[in-house]
Amino acid sequence: SASQDLDLEILEAVMGQLDASRIRENLRELSKEPHLATSPRDEALVQLLLRRWQDPESGLDSAGTSEYEVLLSFPSQEQPNRVDVVGPAGDILFSSQRSEENLTGEQGDPNVVPPYAAYAPPGTPQGLLVYANRGSEEDFMELYHQGIKLQDSIVLTRYGGVGRRAKAVNAAKYGVAGVLVYTDPADINDGKSLPNETFPHSWGLPPSGVERGSYFEYFGDPLTPYLPANPSSFRLDSDSASGFPPIPTQPIGFKDAEVLLCNLQGTSAPAAWQGALSCDYKLGPGFRSDGIFPAGSQVNVSVYNRLELRNSSNVLGIIRGAVEPDRYVLYGNHRDSWVHGAVDPSSGTAVLLELSRVLGTLLKKGTWRPRRSIVFASWGAEEFGLIGSTEFTEELFSKLQERAVAYINVDISVFGMRGGWAYSGRRETKGRGPNRVFLGSPHSQCHPEGAGDAPGPKRHLLCNQTGGNGRGWELGREEDGRGGAGLHGVGGAGAGNLLEGLGVGLRLRGGPCRTRRTVRGLETRVGRAEDQPGRWAWGGASPETGSSSAQIRAPGPSSLSIYDNWIRYSNRSSPVYGLVPSLGTLGAGSDYAPFIHFLGISSMDIAYTYDRSKTSARIYPTYHTAFDTFDYVDKFVDPGFSSHQAVAQTAGSVLLRLSDSLFLPLNVSDYSETLRSFLQAAQQDLGGLLEQHNISLGPLVTAVEKFEEAATVLGQHISALQKGTPDPLQVRMLNDQLMLLERAFLNSRAFPEERYYSHVLWAPRTGSAATFPGLSNACSKAMNTGPGSAAWAEVKRQLSILVVALEGAAATLRPVADL
Amino acid sequence: SASQDLDLEILEAVMGQLDASRIRENLRELSKEPHLATSPRDEALVQLLLRRWQDPESGLDSAGTSEYEVLLSFPSQEQPNRVDVVGPAGDILFSSQRSEENLTGEQGDPNVVPPYAAYAPPGTPQGLLVYANRGSEEDFMELYHQGIKLQDSIVLTRYGGVGRRAKAVNAAKYGVAGVLVYTDPADINDGKSLPNETFPHSWGLPPSGVERGSYFEYFGDPLTPYLPANPSSFRLDSDSASGFPPIPTQPIGFKDAEVLLCNLQGTSAPAAWQGALSCDYKLGPGFRSDGIFPAGSQVNVSVYNRLELRNSSNVLGIIRGAVEPDRYVLYGNHRDSWVHGAVDPSSGTAVLLELSRVLGTLLKKGTWRPRRSIVFASWGAEEFGLIGSTEFTEELFSKLQERAVAYINVDISVFGMRGGWAYSGRRETKGRGPNRVFLGSPHSQCHPEGAGDAPGPKRHLLCNQTGGNGRGWELGREEDGRGGAGLHGVGGAGAGNLLEGLGVGLRLRGGPCRTRRTVRGLETRVGRAEDQPGRWAWGGASPETGSSSAQIRAPGPSSLSIYDNWIRYSNRSSPVYGLVPSLGTLGAGSDYAPFIHFLGISSMDIAYTYDRSKTSARIYPTYHTAFDTFDYVDKFVDPGFSSHQAVAQTAGSVLLRLSDSLFLPLNVSDYSETLRSFLQAAQQDLGGLLEQHNISLGPLVTAVEKFEEAATVLGQHISALQKGTPDPLQVRMLNDQLMLLERAFLNSRAFPEERYYSHVLWAPRTGSAATFPGLSNACSKAMNTGPGSAAWAEVKRQLSILVVALEGAAATLRPVADL
Ligand SMILES: [Ca+2]
Ligand SMILES: [Ca+2]
Ligand SMILES: [Zn+2]
Ligand SMILES: [Zn+2]
Ligand SMILES: [Zn+2]
Ligand SMILES: [Zn+2]
Repeated sequence: SASQDLDLEILEAVMGQLDASRIRENLRELSKEPHLATSPRDEALVQLLLRRWQDPESGLDSAGTSEYEVLLSFPSQEQPNRVDVVGPAGDILFSSQRSEENLTGEQGDPNVVPPYAAYAPPGTPQGLLVYANRGSEEDFMELYHQGIKLQDSIVLTRYGGVGRRAKAVNAAKYGVAGVLVYTDPADINDGKSLPNETFPHSWGLPPSGVERGSYFEYFGDPLTPYLPANPSSFRLDSDSASGFPPIPTQPIGFKDAEVLLCNLQGTSAPAAWQGALSCDYKLGPGFRSDGIFPAGSQVNVSVYNRLELRNSSNVLGIIRGAVEPDRYVLYGNHRDSWVHGAVDPSSGTAVLLELSRVLGTLLKKGTWRPRRSIVFASWGAEEFGLIGSTEFTEELFSKLQERAVAYINVDISVFGMRGGWAYSGRRETKGRGPNRVFLGSPHSQCHPEGAGDAPGPKRHLLCNQTGGNGRGWELGREEDGRGGAGLHGVGGAGAGNLLEGLGVGLRLRGGPCRTRRTVRGLETRVGRAEDQPGRWAWGGASPETGSSSAQIRAPGPSSLSIYDNWIRYSNRSSPVYGLVPSLGTLGAGSDYAPFIHFLGISSMDIAYTYDRSKTSARIYPTYHTAFDTFDYVDKFVDPGFSSHQAVAQTAGSVLLRLSDSLFLPLNVSDYSETLRSFLQAAQQDLGGLLEQHNISLGPLVTAVEKFEEAATVLGQHISALQKGTPDPLQVRMLNDQLMLLERAFLNSRAFPEERYYSHVLWAPRTGSAATFPGLSNACSKAMNTGPGSAAWAEVKRQLSILVVALEGAAATLRPVADL
Repeated sequence: SASQDLDLEILEAVMGQLDASRIRENLRELSKEPHLATSPRDEALVQLLLRRWQDPESGLDSAGTSEYEVLLSFPSQEQPNRVDVVGPAGDILFSSQRSEENLTGEQGDPNVVPPYAAYAPPGTPQGLLVYANRGSEEDFMELYHQGIKLQDSIVLTRYGGVGRRAKAVNAAKYGVAGVLVYTDPADINDGKSLPNETFPHSWGLPPSGVERGSYFEYFGDPLTPYLPANPSSFRLDSDSASGFPPIPTQPIGFKDAEVLLCNLQGTSAPAAWQGALSCDYKLGPGFRSDGIFPAGSQVNVSVYNRLELRNSSNVLGIIRGAVEPDRYVLYGNHRDSWVHGAVDPSSGTAVLLELSRVLGTLLKKGTWRPRRSIVFASWGAEEFGLIGSTEFTEELFSKLQERAVAYINVDISVFGMRGGWAYSGRRETKGRGPNRVFLGSPHSQCHPEGAGDAPGPKRHLLCNQTGGNGRGWELGREEDGRGGAGLHGVGGAGAGNLLEGLGVGLRLRGGPCRTRRTVRGLETRVGRAEDQPGRWAWGGASPETGSSSAQIRAPGPSSLSIYDNWIRYSNRSSPVYGLVPSLGTLGAGSDYAPFIHFLGISSMDIAYTYDRSKTSARIYPTYHTAFDTFDYVDKFVDPGFSSHQAVAQTAGSVLLRLSDSLFLPLNVSDYSETLRSFLQAAQQDLGGLLEQHNISLGPLVTAVEKFEEAATVLGQHISALQKGTPDPLQVRMLNDQLMLLERAFLNSRAFPEERYYSHVLWAPRTGSAATFPGLSNACSKAMNTGPGSAAWAEVKRQLSILVVALEGAAATLRPVADL
């Protein structure tokens, strides 16, 4: 009926039916072969998804595909990209590996795409090699100050620090002719670099492993910004498209990088630039005369990448809502991978398929139909820059903005590793007690799928957005497995930084507001008791409403609930709710980006990850390599798939609550807290500077106060409604306020130079303070200009944009017959 | 209850209670004194409105004001603007009148603002005079080709043809130093120019009358585009603000113009440039030696206008909706006038106050409360460029976009004249039978309030938008008064073009879609029988639903209903409904502009107007002069105020239907017809050109077909729902589709150079074919460029924008659980 709330028995049934072994089988099938975007296997997986979602026993109401013609970038098959050392006589002295070593059989698959930097332009530059650390602006400035000649050089950079493309952009400014990028073992393997210390002997990156990735600056199809890439759509010339790297760029493995780097001449690189390869890192330019290459040897980078228009499919499956079919809860992940993509993205798709199976089965049995419509999505071509999801939002802009309640993204569902570096092939025993649960990781923040490490322009400091949160979003679980001998000191050097009980973690992201709002979806305690399989605890209690928690089964003594772990290890103090879980903000790391930034739809990204206090790995080591395989997951990441199951349950609970709750579980007071904290940061960080320029934050203070007031009154209104028997239209009107609040923060004219970004709270920010991005960025630019400059005018404009958005948002929260 | 439909008895009661004499008294009070924006009298009227809307017996639920700090332009009191003829020795030979002649007492009021061109810059240019016709690009081109020296000249132009500011912009391109603008009797008085032929002897413009007006290009406060002009808002420097005339400009009366024009030397102006003043119009430059000025005499234009930040108020009054308070039907008009503003805008405000009184009385009695909320608005500073309404939409952007059902505008409610030119002071007798009813007039199209004759840039051809409609939106009523001797041959010269029975007309505008959609609101036949006062007929029948028309009282034999008159004199053939009334499109002539163009809210503009086949007056003659007084209305425009009453009833009926109908009276199939006709025009007008450049309209054809299909299916769904007993949520979901359809045509990135315009169907169009503006404009620009030009790329981009918008709109009409 129109007044029915979430059925907790259905929720319990779903939690109980989500099956780890089925997720494992899904993953095996999904990651069986490489499935690069638009490849035959990618298309075969489209059919697999369709079959599952159209299954008469466990499918959805309907499923279909939509296809876009998008610009991708591939290496040439005929002319493989190569990196050579060329002697003074023009003879080739050394060549990089064309592909990763075939360690487990999968790497030999003819469909493995060789390592390359997608969208890097073709070219065959040659020059003396220079080591440029991470290729940041500061790094090149340092080289410049040291007098290192960069003009016409080839620079060797390491992944991390700044976005992929930024390395090439920064380099090109100094006349650099070509860029190499490698992953230093210090950044990914906690220093380990030997074959027997790495996969298939541990979760470490093998010496030949190369991180592929998109070097495109923006997201979406490069030729059709703001338009869906339908066959008939207007397309930019690829010449006039922007956002590609300016010079040839090629990634290599650290084994090859070591040969180049350890033969460089010149002064030693600064201490912070040193890595874990077996030598002192010199700056160059060129090779030392006492190394393996003759003096004057140069490096040649030959890139033969080609841009190609390809058809990429999204698959969409729908469960029609029983009461409000025009309200959509979207749940998606990308389908395409760089190679086999077991972790990225198939660990997410495996969960997606299990969740849709369980819900589809209830649906087909006639047991259940959600209040609102549920839309499952399998996006294409995410690895090239969130393309399938972005085109979808461009195509259905109005409809989604009007009707979408929320978007849930589960890409990589499990980042972490069971056991530790010393894992020796032995399965972790089921009964050994819970591992730590870790929450958060700036993966997508600092290592976005599409755009390199940092999403979009000037995003290299985004990773700091949660810096004010103490431990950020890192969250350790109980340390009960600590120091177990089986986890320590086995195998490999540097036992001192072996990971201890690296376990599963929950990564759950959203703006602090979206966050706390989504947290309400999680107040259901989806507990896990590893030692008691099948025993799950959850309940509908939410502290602020004080409703019954009778249905919560207390978790066993050795198994804190996810919620409790989360709140224990990563929390913040809310004036309204006390201690609550703390979350990060959404960058552009996966397909949620167009939903939150372009359409202003409340979004969430969920994953288990690892304890970054225990490892400095910038991401799971085989990320975007040919070693990200089923066995890698099955042996190292999540043996037994209980972490995957926990993600399925968490995401399933959020999905059910969003689609079945009578009142939308979106918490408005959370945005009050975000605004207040952003305001405080602005006052502390920017207040003095603004005051010097006679710019008052007073109107912003007033706007935040108005928002807080309106949010409080709305909260009281919700409580009152919940106590009575509200009629369906009253509930609808309230839910419309909740759903559309996020839209009130959009201003499509606020950041004209930022493609797609329109959200005045979550747009990219360059400054380090967690505050309003438009104001912060404008201040950074104005800081060194005189009073009366255009940059100071822009500060004032951004402040006004913000005040108007906040006042407008507050207006949407007030009683609906007030203007 | 949640399922209750419009109560026809309430509608009947409202129709019956709308009282002509109260409207007359409202008008007398409103137009008693000049009430220029932000003047003390304007503020006093704010209080009057507040008192009315807060009246315990006949007020609304609540009322309040909101104030903006906006940039207005005023002439200097200390240094009056002046136009002089200066002899070779520097002596002043002639000066224009500083103010209009005090013919009826009102013109002597010290609060009458002297004639000026608002936002024209100060300056005292002096030069030889040149006659430049209407100051269009073509006019200056003609002068250039004739070898007339324009550099450093002063040009005399006449109102009409192009927008006010365009005259100065076009002139400045040729080095012209100053611009004069006057109203030629041929354009306003059907040639009459003698004192005894004009007001107070007829509705004609007296020789000293001067049309004031805003010469600002855009709408909204000039310093705060896209931001509400709150005191703390970021403001552009007035130096860096754009849209002001580039050179000093001053309007004058035709009496003064005649002195200047009839003394010009040079060759005769082309025949089409000749007017009704008593001489052959020469081009200049300079005065003829045998005239009243010595050879070499120059014209000096002294403009001392000043820009001032002023506080302007909107007044808002709200009736809270009983069932869906979060759905707003807005009804507004501006309050500010140039002088007394009896016609413009007080004839609309007088109706507004009467309508709010009648509804307020029902409300306070407890007899009635609408299903949806009604918002009455009295906008400030419209005359300077729709400022109050624009700032309102900027301030409440999100809330209004999410919740506004429609905006109804009634500015000038009666344009027409009873009797004819020969009116000799005798009141028209009540019983002489109905005058003609005329529908339409491109007033706001060609004579916008804010921006001069043509709104916005490149709008000078907008007036042609309805050109394909045969008689456009002109609509004559029964011709039963025709040729009455009392109306003929009395007074004045040129009896041949005396108006015959110029009567009342209904101007009702909206996009053909908005139009037809609003027409559904008008299918209620608000009939009037002038000879039987108080007898009104209406009913709820709408042809497409076939519902009962039992409640329609047939109009008397001598009084066709408005609907029947309208359909009789201005119609088009709808494939769905047969013969239906035909309507024009909305330009930027009054406060509806920001609602439809910026927010995508279905809007409507209602007025009675005159038969333009009977007069060539470009607008009612005393428009924006000190002669637009209560007596002018009472004696010439609408003695007895029955036309005002008819507007009140028509607007009231639309308002009630929009706010009380269970299903929103917004007709989707009408948009199908518009799209089809736009498509056909594009195929005919642009198809060949596009084909030459290998641009196919195929995707557009497909998109229109998809829209038509979705609209048809939705129509069937509505019919089915209406037959059954739909639950409240079903109705709400359907109404959301109807309400939000208009939003699907918005694309804030479609026309970046056009301030506020975002509607892909109703943005300004330069071409003459009634088709899609973005495509049409882009084609005009590309036409003379080579293939591969940026202009041709823009054509393709505009085509894609359009296709995506249409496909997106179709998607919003489909069953809500389809994607
Ligand atoms: Ca696109
Ligand atoms: Ca403004
Ligand atoms: Zn991914
Ligand atoms: Zn990825
Ligand atoms: Zn007006
Ligand atoms: Zn006006």
